Amino acid sequence: MATILLTGFAPFNQEKTNPSWQAVKQFEGKATQDGSQIHVAELPCEFGRANEVLINLIQQTKADTVICLGQAGGRPEISVERVAINIDDARIPDNAGIQPIDQPIQAVGQNAYFSSLPIKAIVHNLRQNNIPAQVSQTAGTFVCNHVFYGLMHYAETHHHIKRAGFIHIPYLPEQAVNHAGAPSMSLETLLNSIKITLEVCTKQGQDLALTGGSLD
Amino acid sequence: MATILLTGFAPFNQEKTNPSWQAVKQFEGKATQDGSQIHVAELPCEFGRANEVLINLIQQTKADTVICLGQAGGRPEISVERVAINIDDARIPDNAGIQPIDQPIQAVGQNAYFSSLPIKAIVHNLRQNNIPAQVSQTAGTFVCNHVFYGLMHYAETHHHIKRAGFIHIPYLPEQAVNHAGAPSMSLETLLNSIKITLEVCTKQGQDLALTGGSLD
Amino acid sequence: MATILLTGFAPFNQEKTNPSWQAVKQFEGKATQDGSQIHVAELPCEFGRANEVLINLIQQTKADTVICLGQAGGRPEISVERVAINIDDARIPDNAGIQPIDQPIQAVGQNAYFSSLPIKAIVHNLRQNNIPAQVSQTAGTFVCNHVFYGLMHYAETHHHIKRAGFIHIPYLPEQAVNHAGAPSMSLETLLNSIKITLEVCTKQGQDLALTGGSLD
Amino acid sequence: MATILLTGFAPFNQEKTNPSWQAVKQFEGKATQDGSQIHVAELPCEFGRANEVLINLIQQTKADTVICLGQAGGRPEISVERVAINIDDARIPDNAGIQPIDQPIQAVGQNAYFSSLPIKAIVHNLRQNNIPAQVSQTAGTFVCNHVFYGLMHYAETHHHIKRAGFIHIPYLPEQAVNHAGAPSMSLETLLNSIKITLEVCTKQGQDLALTGGSLD
Repeated sequence: MATILLTGFAPFNQEKTNPSWQAVKQFEGKATQDGSQIHVAELPCEFGRANEVLINLIQQTKADTVICLGQAGGRPEISVERVAINIDDARIPDNAGIQPIDQPIQAVGQNAYFSSLPIKAIVHNLRQNNIPAQVSQTAGTFVCNHVFYGLMHYAETHHHIKRAGFIHIPYLPEQAVNHAGAPSMSLETLLNSIKITLEVCTKQGQDLALTGGSLD
Repeated sequence: MATILLTGFAPFNQEKTNPSWQAVKQFEGKATQDGSQIHVAELPCEFGRANEVLINLIQQTKADTVICLGQAGGRPEISVERVAINIDDARIPDNAGIQPIDQPIQAVGQNAYFSSLPIKAIVHNLRQNNIPAQVSQTAGTFVCNHVFYGLMHYAETHHHIKRAGFIHIPYLPEQAVNHAGAPSMSLETLLNSIKITLEVCTKQGQDLALTGGSLD
Repeated sequence: MATILLTGFAPFNQEKTNPSWQAVKQFEGKATQDGSQIHVAELPCEFGRANEVLINLIQQTKADTVICLGQAGGRPEISVERVAINIDDARIPDNAGIQPIDQPIQAVGQNAYFSSLPIKAIVHNLRQNNIPAQVSQTAGTFVCNHVFYGLMHYAETHHHIKRAGFIHIPYLPEQAVNHAGAPSMSLETLLNSIKITLEVCTKQGQDLALTGGSLD
Repeated sequence: MATILLTGFAPFNQEKTNPSWQAVKQFEGKATQDGSQIHVAELPCEFGRANEVLINLIQQTKADTVICLGQAGGRPEISVERVAINIDDARIPDNAGIQPIDQPIQAVGQNAYFSSLPIKAIVHNLRQNNIPAQVSQTAGTFVCNHVFYGLMHYAETHHHIKRAGFIHIPYLPEQAVNHAGAPSMSLETLLNSIKITLEVCTKQGQDLALTGGSLD
C-alpha cells in the first residue's frame, strides 16, 4: 500500500479552467484497489511558490508516490513525461507575473532527472484501455517542468518517495471550443486515465521494456 | 414534427469500427423534444451502393430530414460540412475494391450542392454546449462526399426533404490509440453532439448569420 | 502557343508581403518554351473589386490561359485547387473592410466550378521535379475562392479561355518567421513551381488519370 | 579564430538522402569571416559507432567548436537543440539493425547536458535573416540525441572544446514529396542557416537573454 499525492494546476494563460485540477480533485479521499490512500491538491501556476506548496504537501501527507498533472494545450494524447530539465525559460509570465529566462531551477541540482514512474507500463495500460497515450520527451520549460524538476530533485534526497513523475493532459472540450483546430479529451476519459495510472503505479514492479522513443 | 433519418458508415481503411455508426445506432427508435421520430441505418462504404441504400431508406422512412455522418480520421472537431462536389476521386479502394478517379457522381447533376442544414446554428450550439465544432469547406472526394452529394442531388428533385446534410466526426479514442498523434472524441461527446444537432435541426428556422469561413 | 495571364494578390491579414505576387511578378514579359507570352498582375485583396480587375485584365490581354495564385498561410505544399464554390464567407474583413457572410458570389452562377487546368499533371510534374505539391479540395471561402469562382464563371461563358484555375502557395520563409510552427517555401522553389506549371499547361493535353483525392 | 567541426548524418528510416549531410558537406575546406577553419564529416546513423567516429574526428581535427546536424522529418523550422538526455530509446532499428530501449548512453554520465552553443543568439540571427528557427527542448531519443549527448559528455571532460551542440533541420523538398503534408526547407535556405550559425558561434560571446521556452 502506498500513500499517493496527486496534484493539478490552477488555470493559466487566460484559460478559465485547468483540466489537471478538474480531473485530480475528483480523487479526493479515494483509494486504489490495494487500499492506497489518495490525497489531492491544486498547485499555483507560479515559479518557486508551486514547488514550496508541493514540498509542504509531500511532508504533510507523507506521500511515497507523487504524480503531478498539468495541461498541455494542443497535445491530443495523455503525455507521460520522461524527463525534467534544470531550466526555467518562460514564454509568458506565470500567474504572479514572473517570467524567468534561462534560470536554473536548482543551483546545485542535476541537469535533469528521469521520472521514477513506470512510464512505459502506464502508456501501455492506457492504450490497452482505449485511451490515446504516449511517452513525452519534454515537459517544456514553464511551470510544469519547474514542478516536475522540483519534485524529482526532492525525491532524490528524500528516499521515502518511491515513485514520482509528471503527466501532461490535453485541453477539455470546453477549452478547445476557443482554440480552433485544437484537440481535446473528455473529463470522463481523463478520470479513467488517472484511475488506470494509479493502479499501474501501485501494482507494476519494474517498468516494461517497451519502446516509447522519438526519432527527433 | 419531422421524420429524421440518421446514417453512419461501416468501418473502412483497415479500421475495426466507424465512430459514425457507433454513435448513430444509439438513436434508433428515439425522438427529439418536439416528437420527431428518428430512424437510423448503417451505409456500406462503397461507391454507388451506399447511395442506393440511402435512397431506399429515405423512401421507406419518408424522412424529411436526413443527416449522414462519417469518420474524418485526424480531424479534432465535429465538422459540419458545407458543400458536396460532383466528383469521385479515391485515394484508396472502397470496401468493394472500387477506386474511381475523377468520375462525376451524376452525369447531369450540378457541380456541387450546399447543405440545407442550419450549419452555422449547429456549430454555434455545439460550441455553446462545450463541444469543439467547425464548418468544413470540404467533405473530401471519397465515399463520404459521394453520399453527401447523392443525398443533396436527390433532395433537389424530391421536395419532401426539407433538410439534409453531412457531418464528419473524429476518431474514437479506441481508434486514435493506433494512430500516434491523432486527436479523438469520446462516444459520450459524440452522442451529445448528435442530440444537440437534432434539436437545432427541428427548432431552428433560417440559419444564423455567423461566419464559418476559411481563408484558404 | 497561348497567351497566359498570371495573377498574385496584395498582402492581407497583417502580412507585409504576399508570396503569390512576389513570385508572379518575376514572370513579367517572359515566355514559355513554346513561345506563349506571359502577362502578370497583382489583384487587390477585396471582394468584388478583385474580380473586376481580373476580368479587365483578361479582356485587355486576350489571355486564353489564366492562372491565379494566392497565399495559403500554414499549408506546407503547393496546392493546386480543384473547385471553386459560389459563396463568400469571410472570417476577417478584406482589405477594404468588407466581411460578407454566406453571400453567393453570382446570383445566377453554378454552385461550383471545377478548374480547367490539368491539375493532376501539374501535381505530378511538380513532384517529379522535387517540389511538394497536392491537389486541394477547397480554396476556402475568402477572396481567393472569390477570384477563383469569378474566373471560372467568366470562363464558362467566354470560350476564348481554354484553361483557367487557381493555385495556393505556402508562406515565404520571411513570413513564417513570425508564425511559430508554420511551414514555408523558398522563393526559388516557388518560381520553379510556377515555371513547371506553365510548361505543363502549354504542353499537356487531357489531364492525367492519377488520384488526387482526399478521404475527408 | 576557431577550428570548427560540422557533422551530418547518413540517410536513415528508408530515406535516400539526409539533408544534414547534403548541407554540411558543402562547407568542406571553407572558413568563417574571422578565418576559422571548417572541417566536415558524415556520421553513420548507428548507436555507438556514430560517437566513436565523432570522437575520432574531434581528436584528429583538434576542433574547439563542434556542431552536429541531423534530420527532423516533419519539423518546419531550424531547431536549435537545448538539451541532450542520457537515454537511448529507439522506435525503429538504426542502420546497423540495433534498437536499444531505455539504455543509458553513458553509465556514469550526467542525466543530461545543455548545449554550449549560443542557442538564443543563433535563433535570433536566423530569424533576423528571414529563416524560420526555434529553440527545441528535445532532440528525441534516437541516434541524433545519442550523438548530441556523446558530444557534450566528451566536451565536459575535454576542455579544449569551447562550444558544442546540435541542430535539427527539416526535410528537403525532394524528401517531402514522399510525405504528404510534411513541411520542408530548401537546400539554399539550409546552407544559409548554417553559414549564419557559424558566424554567430565565432562572434557571439555570452548568449542573448531572449526567451526560447515552451509551455509544455
